[in-house]
Amino acid sequence: MESTGFLPFLFLLLSVLLFLLFTRLWVDLPYPSFDKAELLGCSSYSPWCTSKNRFQSKPHLIRNPENTKLQRNHNAQVPHHPLDPLTIQEINKVLTIFLSYPLISSSSFTIHSLVLQEPEKPLVLSWKKGDPLLPRRASVVALVNGKSHVLTVDLDSSQVIRHDLGSPFGYPMMTIEDMNSATWAPLADANFNRTILNRGINLADLACLPISTGWYGKKEENRRLIKVQCYSMEGTANFYMRPIEGLTVLLDMDTREVVEISDKGQHIPIPQAANTDYRYAAQNKPLRMKPLNPISIEQPKGPSFSIENEHMVKWANWEFHLKPDPRAGVIISRAMVRDSETGELRSVMYKGLTSELFVPYMDPTDAWYFKTYMDAGEYGFGLQAMPLDPLNDCPRNAYYMDGVFAAADGKPYVRSNMICVFESYAGDIGWRHSESPITGMEIREVRPKVTLVVRMAASVANYDYIVDWEFQTDGLIRIKVGLSGILMVKGTPYGNMNKVPQEEDLYGTLLSENVIGVIHDHYITFYLDMDIDGSDNSFVKVNLARQDTLPGESPRKSYLKATRHVAKTEKDAQIKLKLYDPSEFHVINSNKKTRVGNPVGYKVVPGGTAASLLDHQDPPQLRGAFTNNQIWVTRYNRSEQWAGGVFVYQSQGEDTLAVWSERNRPIENKDIVLWYTLGFHHIPCQEDFPIMPTVSSSFDLKPVNFFESNPVLRMPPNYEKDLPVCRPAAAA
Amino acid sequence: MESTGFLPFLFLLLSVLLFLLFTRLWVDLPYPSFDKAELLGCSSYSPWCTSKNRFQSKPHLIRNPENTKLQRNHNAQVPHHPLDPLTIQEINKVLTIFLSYPLISSSSFTIHSLVLQEPEKPLVLSWKKGDPLLPRRASVVALVNGKSHVLTVDLDSSQVIRHDLGSPFGYPMMTIEDMNSATWAPLADANFNRTILNRGINLADLACLPISTGWYGKKEENRRLIKVQCYSMEGTANFYMRPIEGLTVLLDMDTREVVEISDKGQHIPIPQAANTDYRYAAQNKPLRMKPLNPISIEQPKGPSFSIENEHMVKWANWEFHLKPDPRAGVIISRAMVRDSETGELRSVMYKGLTSELFVPYMDPTDAWYFKTYMDAGEYGFGLQAMPLDPLNDCPRNAYYMDGVFAAADGKPYVRSNMICVFESYAGDIGWRHSESPITGMEIREVRPKVTLVVRMAASVANYDYIVDWEFQTDGLIRIKVGLSGILMVKGTPYGNMNKVPQEEDLYGTLLSENVIGVIHDHYITFYLDMDIDGSDNSFVKVNLARQDTLPGESPRKSYLKATRHVAKTEKDAQIKLKLYDPSEFHVINSNKKTRVGNPVGYKVVPGGTAASLLDHQDPPQLRGAFTNNQIWVTRYNRSEQWAGGVFVYQSQGEDTLAVWSERNRPIENKDIVLWYTLGFHHIPCQEDFPIMPTVSSSFDLKPVNFFESNPVLRMPPNYEKDLPVCRPAAAA
Repeated sequence: MESTGFLPFLFLLLSVLLFLLFTRLWVDLPYPSFDKAELLGCSSYSPWCTSKNRFQSKPHLIRNPENTKLQRNHNAQVPHHPLDPLTIQEINKVLTIFLSYPLISSSSFTIHSLVLQEPEKPLVLSWKKGDPLLPRRASVVALVNGKSHVLTVDLDSSQVIRHDLGSPFGYPMMTIEDMNSATWAPLADANFNRTILNRGINLADLACLPISTGWYGKKEENRRLIKVQCYSMEGTANFYMRPIEGLTVLLDMDTREVVEISDKGQHIPIPQAANTDYRYAAQNKPLRMKPLNPISIEQPKGPSFSIENEHMVKWANWEFHLKPDPRAGVIISRAMVRDSETGELRSVMYKGLTSELFVPYMDPTDAWYFKTYMDAGEYGFGLQAMPLDPLNDCPRNAYYMDGVFAAADGKPYVRSNMICVFESYAGDIGWRHSESPITGMEIREVRPKVTLVVRMAASVANYDYIVDWEFQTDGLIRIKVGLSGILMVKGTPYGNMNKVPQEEDLYGTLLSENVIGVIHDHYITFYLDMDIDGSDNSFVKVNLARQDTLPGESPRKSYLKATRHVAKTEKDAQIKLKLYDPSEFHVINSNKKTRVGNPVGYKVVPGGTAASLLDHQDPPQLRGAFTNNQIWVTRYNRSEQWAGGVFVYQSQGEDTLAVWSERNRPIENKDIVLWYTLGFHHIPCQEDFPIMPTVSSSFDLKPVNFFESNPVLRMPPNYEKDLPVCRPAAAA
Repeated sequence: MESTGFLPFLFLLLSVLLFLLFTRLWVDLPYPSFDKAELLGCSSYSPWCTSKNRFQSKPHLIRNPENTKLQRNHNAQVPHHPLDPLTIQEINKVLTIFLSYPLISSSSFTIHSLVLQEPEKPLVLSWKKGDPLLPRRASVVALVNGKSHVLTVDLDSSQVIRHDLGSPFGYPMMTIEDMNSATWAPLADANFNRTILNRGINLADLACLPISTGWYGKKEENRRLIKVQCYSMEGTANFYMRPIEGLTVLLDMDTREVVEISDKGQHIPIPQAANTDYRYAAQNKPLRMKPLNPISIEQPKGPSFSIENEHMVKWANWEFHLKPDPRAGVIISRAMVRDSETGELRSVMYKGLTSELFVPYMDPTDAWYFKTYMDAGEYGFGLQAMPLDPLNDCPRNAYYMDGVFAAADGKPYVRSNMICVFESYAGDIGWRHSESPITGMEIREVRPKVTLVVRMAASVANYDYIVDWEFQTDGLIRIKVGLSGILMVKGTPYGNMNKVPQEEDLYGTLLSENVIGVIHDHYITFYLDMDIDGSDNSFVKVNLARQDTLPGESPRKSYLKATRHVAKTEKDAQIKLKLYDPSEFHVINSNKKTRVGNPVGYKVVPGGTAASLLDHQDPPQLRGAFTNNQIWVTRYNRSEQWAGGVFVYQSQGEDTLAVWSERNRPIENKDIVLWYTLGFHHIPCQEDFPIMPTVSSSFDLKPVNFFESNPVLRMPPNYEKDLPVCRPAAAA
């Protein structure tokens, strides 16, 4: 048995050499003196450090002169708005203060979050452009000797002004370094290496993923654990399709010690590599369809939006503050729309963000039951938002915004092109009316629909989430989530459905020989701090119900009647959507009425969605209890922003939206927060192999008696003379 | 009392004179010798004939030389495909045969439908390009002495080869001439004119609408009735916002006799004209937002689709037959997609169309209870599809298709630009995957999403329905309905909500002084004759339900398990959607399996929708019973295409989809038809005044194990070099 231990060592040595030859940084260097390699734990063991060279197809962004310029700008950047994220200089200053804090200077630590602590809402609301900036503070979440600490660092006084202990239950968001080191830590374990070799996998072909453990009882208490599952990347970039099924390594994230290896899949072959690579360069079969001519959204006079001071977006009748965030991805703040009658800028939403995701897989067996991801609180939805691909992720006229984040040692780095902003026109119609031959009036009035899109795409390992905030000139905000990327699949001995016994539960669909796409759900919960013309708002359920007419009252037996129910407390606003008991859901300002006396408001308009059906007492559902309703409304509370709790990792569901809502605080005519959960059931099908075409769903925030009348009535139509004259680039 | 009868006569006289001066044709003349004015009943009385001059803003299409050319083409047109609609020459030939048929030659008649009788499905399926065309036949629905007759005219033998009587219950679709004459017929009634004058309306300012009566009992039997309601167009093109509330004229559509006048709204003022006109030329207030720079979808090498022989659309991996239809609007036939592996063209859908609409208003009072429109079977969804406005209804690269229809006297006319076909690119993502820093692989593969859209917009009086059939390269068909246009509003004495007693039911929302937007629903029912790799298909409900684990089986308490239920008979396939009891709905071909043994199929994927809540025994719901479920599947039957029945007008619900489905025919491994109903509840709000921003919803037909794997894997990304070089037109 001992002799097999030598082979892995050889591979490791090989890896080290390959690494030393080819190692490249995976994030942009904020400035040349910053040594990222060490910091990222991308040290000699990692197979990733070689693989990234193998699969590299494009020049690294650092070499792009335009990006270098952007990075220089980041170094010089100063905040202009109280909500602007910390700059590189500010992060460095916070780090200096943090490092000299007694607790820290004497201990080993990792920083799990280092972001702006936004000033109190009333201060931000009363701040105006030109005012002195509000005091700049940072909130730092650090693990110190295995315990979570939350420190508030004041940049003006250069002091830690507050120091709290974290939750006794969960842990903070993993760092990229946590995830990275988890992927190579098992290689230090001889048993693990033996297991891999026994499966016929070269260690150099190994690709491992860090999988959050969730919480299932005592085993997950008082220790930061992670599960690691591995794949063969031999012959394909799409290692996700080649699981080493049944092999799960339980790892201590802090000591990097292998706690347990479970290997119940020796009888399951590794699926073939053939036909799994998705890179364009790897395609060698015919397209089998007529190729499309180039098509592009063109704006010869340039885009109509502007971005002031890095973060204030102004477009048509909209203004809002936009920033990248390591946990939420995108944060939209102070969204305001100009009144179509008075020209006044009116408040719609104080803050909107992706609060949490919950992605339970539907397989209770040993290697799968724990896969119940919470992608924001565990992995960092923003940390996983990779640079967007210009012309493909966003059209030509897009503006790209970078993220400036702190690494585990607190040093800043730049995630370039993390968010894009662009105007979209799909050929759709904003409003129209033709008169018909019945009236004979020769009227055809049509207005094209142009929108402004803010987009990010988070690649949480295999899955890619595309999140769009789409602003319309008619005052509507559409929040759209697209799911693409790659399935998390399961190996199986079966090569054909005709071999599967009738009674056997595959937990999914056979997608290819030995590959099962496991059924799973996605829930994306949005935090929407609506401030309709001010902070004091109410939540109104406008219920539509059948009303039966009295005998003789009408030739009709029935009609639908709308009844308004104002929610008094949080429990009144725990909403499950019902097709046969429909309602509209308004957030109104009852203190402000339209000319004819309707309270001004916005409504949340659900689109296609799905509800979680898991047992409410099932551990994952306890943690994901924020999906127990599709809509919730809570009293504004600065600390209640993350629907699964601040310390989600291995949490027990003790600090979720569901818990807060049970407090049943009064919410009538108060500062309230609306929560909406967008859901998807996903039963995979063969079209999802080896990569998934995007599936999207959305919901809307829509003005309802907010404007006195149609706010886009006076927009002009398109005229031929305004449209561009275009030539093929090749002929230019 | 008699003296007041003279004034209306004076106005009528004035109208006649104005008409003679300005009268213009509302449809394009197919050829110069064709006198449309007489035929359309747009005779001396009609206020529309004057109004259309008043509001005319654009040169009439007949003057456009390009359109003249198109018309010439129509005259020369010959059919190429068995499903091609009747040409002008064919309609003329049918008319000649029809006129010499004994029944007709001796009677007065109106033609309510004259369309191709499609050959039997097996004949069409076995027909191939290059084969001789199948026998051309027309189906003619005519009212002869008040009775419906259905005649099949054979063009080859020049004979009527079949003659059936219509339904003893309902009547055929109204003709445009029916609707037109209903709007002026009341003016022949002195009482009516007196009533109008008593309301302070000049007869020259009168605009009246023909409103289908529905069926509520004996009163509506054995007589073709219509209700007429009127508006003042003084000071605005948007007369819909100025109802003469409470006034309803019941009219005999055949004799044009006023049966009854009901006037219960004398106390209700006519709402003001101010701020109601929506025409761009009539706007005189500032825009109040930053105007947008021009934006356009550009294809410097032209579109990627082709249209062969007028009706065969070929794009990317899709081919389908497209034709305009007076009742359905758009008919898509023989939709086939090319297999991404074999290159074989595979059948997806034999025929898809908008079968019926149901639009019940939620006000049981005298002037409103009957408003329960069925826009296809009563008004002709295609007849109401007005010419699209290039650059605004469809983007620049669109192709426009004309409709060739028959008027009430059987003569052909051309509805130009009725359908557009274009490629859409909104900046969206077809599929993507980035590798994350965890794996370190430098992969960013993204494919833009480009689609092909087939669009029409039907203006059924005030409402505008935009129907899109959107084809994706990944095999998905999205069917989207947009609602825009103008609300049907109700007059009210109230000017402010603070004057409305608490207990009073307004049946809607106060939108402006004296204007209520009445609550209503929209249901659009689609006929989808799916033929997945052949005609014999099955319908499978794949139900997702919670499965509880056994004690000790797993740390998980629950998961979701998919169970397949094959529908044996029609009743098994009567589906109400349930958020908490979700299913996927597949149409499969159980005779054809993928390599790994899954039956090939397509699924219908609902988006946001609404369900009818009316009492099933309420007369309108009996007629609209096809909305009792969201999904139905029936055995293919050539005569079951119109969900509300063939003779919908004043029907009693005797011939609906609900009735057919109750026959409970076997549907497993048979030729089956899928029906999907898209619903909207509409509680109007002030943003809908004086015109409604488009509200859209959609559903998808999506391949599910139809392809062996992702069909768009091999599509290329966008490259800068392929995109156009554009300049502002002004600088060109």
